Amino acid sequence: MNIREEARAMKLAAPKLAASSADRRNAALAAVAAALDAKRDEIFAANHADMDAAAADGVSGAVMKRLKFDTGKLEDVIKGIQQLITLPDPLNKVTLARELDEGLIMQRVSVPIGVIGVIFEARPDALVQISTLCIKSGNCAILKGGKETARTNRVLFETIHAAAVEAGLPAACLLQAELHNEIDELLSCEKDVDLLIPRGSNAFVQYIMNNTKIPVMGHADGVCHIYVDKDADETIAIPILLDAKTQYTAACNAVETILVHRDIAKTFLPKLAEAFRGADIRLRGTAEAGELIAGGLLAGGAEASGITGAVGKETTAAPVTAGTNESVQNPDAGSVIPENYEIMQEDEFHREYLELIASVRVVSGVEEAVEHINRFGSHHTDAIITANDETASYFMQMVDSAGVYRNCSTRFADGFRYGFGAEVGISTSKLHARGPVGLEGLVTYKYEITGAGHIVGDYASGRRQFHFRDL
Amino acid sequence: MNIREEARAMKLAAPKLAASSADRRNAALAAVAAALDAKRDEIFAANHADMDAAAADGVSGAVMKRLKFDTGKLEDVIKGIQQLITLPDPLNKVTLARELDEGLIMQRVSVPIGVIGVIFEARPDALVQISTLCIKSGNCAILKGGKETARTNRVLFETIHAAAVEAGLPAACLLQAELHNEIDELLSCEKDVDLLIPRGSNAFVQYIMNNTKIPVMGHADGVCHIYVDKDADETIAIPILLDAKTQYTAACNAVETILVHRDIAKTFLPKLAEAFRGADIRLRGTAEAGELIAGGLLAGGAEASGITGAVGKETTAAPVTAGTNESVQNPDAGSVIPENYEIMQEDEFHREYLELIASVRVVSGVEEAVEHINRFGSHHTDAIITANDETASYFMQMVDSAGVYRNCSTRFADGFRYGFGAEVGISTSKLHARGPVGLEGLVTYKYEITGAGHIVGDYASGRRQFHFRDL
Repeated sequence: MNIREEARAMKLAAPKLAASSADRRNAALAAVAAALDAKRDEIFAANHADMDAAAADGVSGAVMKRLKFDTGKLEDVIKGIQQLITLPDPLNKVTLARELDEGLIMQRVSVPIGVIGVIFEARPDALVQISTLCIKSGNCAILKGGKETARTNRVLFETIHAAAVEAGLPAACLLQAELHNEIDELLSCEKDVDLLIPRGSNAFVQYIMNNTKIPVMGHADGVCHIYVDKDADETIAIPILLDAKTQYTAACNAVETILVHRDIAKTFLPKLAEAFRGADIRLRGTAEAGELIAGGLLAGGAEASGITGAVGKETTAAPVTAGTNESVQNPDAGSVIPENYEIMQEDEFHREYLELIASVRVVSGVEEAVEHINRFGSHHTDAIITANDETASYFMQMVDSAGVYRNCSTRFADGFRYGFGAEVGISTSKLHARGPVGLEGLVTYKYEITGAGHIVGDYASGRRQFHFRDL
Repeated sequence: MNIREEARAMKLAAPKLAASSADRRNAALAAVAAALDAKRDEIFAANHADMDAAAADGVSGAVMKRLKFDTGKLEDVIKGIQQLITLPDPLNKVTLARELDEGLIMQRVSVPIGVIGVIFEARPDALVQISTLCIKSGNCAILKGGKETARTNRVLFETIHAAAVEAGLPAACLLQAELHNEIDELLSCEKDVDLLIPRGSNAFVQYIMNNTKIPVMGHADGVCHIYVDKDADETIAIPILLDAKTQYTAACNAVETILVHRDIAKTFLPKLAEAFRGADIRLRGTAEAGELIAGGLLAGGAEASGITGAVGKETTAAPVTAGTNESVQNPDAGSVIPENYEIMQEDEFHREYLELIASVRVVSGVEEAVEHINRFGSHHTDAIITANDETASYFMQMVDSAGVYRNCSTRFADGFRYGFGAEVGISTSKLHARGPVGLEGLVTYKYEITGAGHIVGDYASGRRQFHFRDL
């Protein structure tokens, strides 16, 4: 059976899964948790084989950590499933009940989306989280994980699927796609697949978005910003910036661009440069920011931090094309920038590094910071550091992103940290779910109306009138 | 200025409109209503010119009725605006407030979608409804109406825009596109336009969906069904079917396919055929349905209704390809079907007629009805006629459509009839808004988090723990 036929079977099974009771779906989750626990040796053996193959392929240590599925990770996903069971049923919630006229009653009721395709990175825990979120929300799911964990995924999937079906869910509730070419087949199933959630690199997500008629939820870029305001508390600013850049550098919610208010830039930027140098983070940005860093280092910061020889390139030689004021305001040809700092083109502020590099720019205030973020950002998560309520309020109102934060790290953008139990992904789209997508993002609704022979002609002719009374 | 530049300006203005108070947006709506009233002579003069041009072009009477904008329609749209003012503000609603940890507070707040492009048919009242819904919901809108009402639209747009700006909304809150080639330009504005809402023919909506990267909300098809169950009250069934087919035949919520339970088909179908013949509606469908109609007419119905000569083609000659049982169950070669009835291929059940034609099929029960609807329908609006609660409940649970109705006409699928004040369109998508789209469908949300220097590293290391307390 190919993916298209399987998707067709899934589409037909979807209303049956949607109609299953919350008790049955929760019982299936409990069965999944128990089965994963019972099959732990088989799961670990498969994971050892995946890890051995990855090591033979010379996969890096950071990636190996993600591939690994050990006792700790198994216990985490089982704990996650147990938490999911305790969450309220997202289905059959009446979100609007209205009497349109005597005997004509409307209800808006939450229902599953239907058939969801999720394509995700090589992380065994992701397979468990995504499949159990879909079971809880009554959605059929086609799962395609990264090939580096193919053996682990197969055992996990078979365990989860068998337990779910044993507990009474339709056999077509879950399907695993294992071959890379099945992705293209999946992309052409617009008649039967209601939603695709791709996770992975920018290029991969863009490919999915450009090659299917199925609605896509997710994000390509995560160009997150932190704006350090003139009223920022510097004792929290540097730790937040370090956390946002280094706590998980490859994550979409890691900070990529730091904007600093001009009034504090002269003192703050050298401190930032010093702290970032200590964490092996390279800075790139405007000439003005580079000069202020160099100035601060020359004025004494360099000796204090043990940085020497931090002065090198002349700004006049650098191809500065920034259209805003800051580079013009500092046209002194003799100014110098630190060796570790790279002057860059303005359009590079769109870049998502996902490594130990950050862009930096000096701005005139919160208005310019907001303009920069709305122009160069990816509407993912952006933060302000300020003690000023009015400035914070302006920033949070005006920045057009899924997450707008004050005085905390952008790394909080995550379904678990929002208390959603888990997430199937993070959406930068403005339709449907935005930000981390948990159970609520996996449901839609239908309008149910019950009458007693009501016809529209009676209302058009004026024989009857609507009275719209919410129940 | 071209559409792309205008859309860019709009994108920059969108956060300002989003930040405007509900009072200011309501004041703008009041100003719009007053201005429309004051400019009525100018509006009517423009509409007369449009009507004269349409008459000269030989436009049909039904279309002329839609183009017309007279005192009655002006008063209706003004009443609609006054109703819109009284509706609660859809913005800045806190839909989730949660303390993630001490001092780390998350809120989910409703915000406008941003910049919306709406392309709609030649109906002046649509321009007023769409622009005022966008003002109320804080969205910038690019409006492109049908060319047959170009003069009326221009006066209406200028009146609305001037009043809104005078009341303090940003100048870039509304833009009118007047040239057809501007549609293609609009389709390429994926960086600045957040949502497109196309209204019009199936082919037009498909064209929009296939030629843009901007998310599209709306519907191409409206293949609505009514299933007449064996427990149907026949005294309401025929009036509902007539209303659903004839009250506004060209509407997307008009019924296209009628499914009838086999147990009552022999008596019900001849009555349906008689009533539809009286309303000049042609029936098409399976051989079985045709034979039952013919049988009923022969048995006496024909004389009673004055229908003569209603027996013609032989079913054996017709290319019946239906895969289900009913055609096999009636293989008698000598059976006849009425002259006014056309046997059709099974895949034609996908057809949306939008004229006085309906498809008809006999089914074995609610399960087969649901399967037919989920397979051939467009997930718009489908109804069951039955006095049996259990059968109704199964139908409403299992049919995968935006609207599932019992014992009333499919024509109720409409924003005004749902009590939404008005609608920008009807969505058959399962993401974001589904069914008639009013104010709630025009907003999204953002997550706001406020901390006091909180970093994720502290939670990863176990130094701090989330406690997730809803506020």
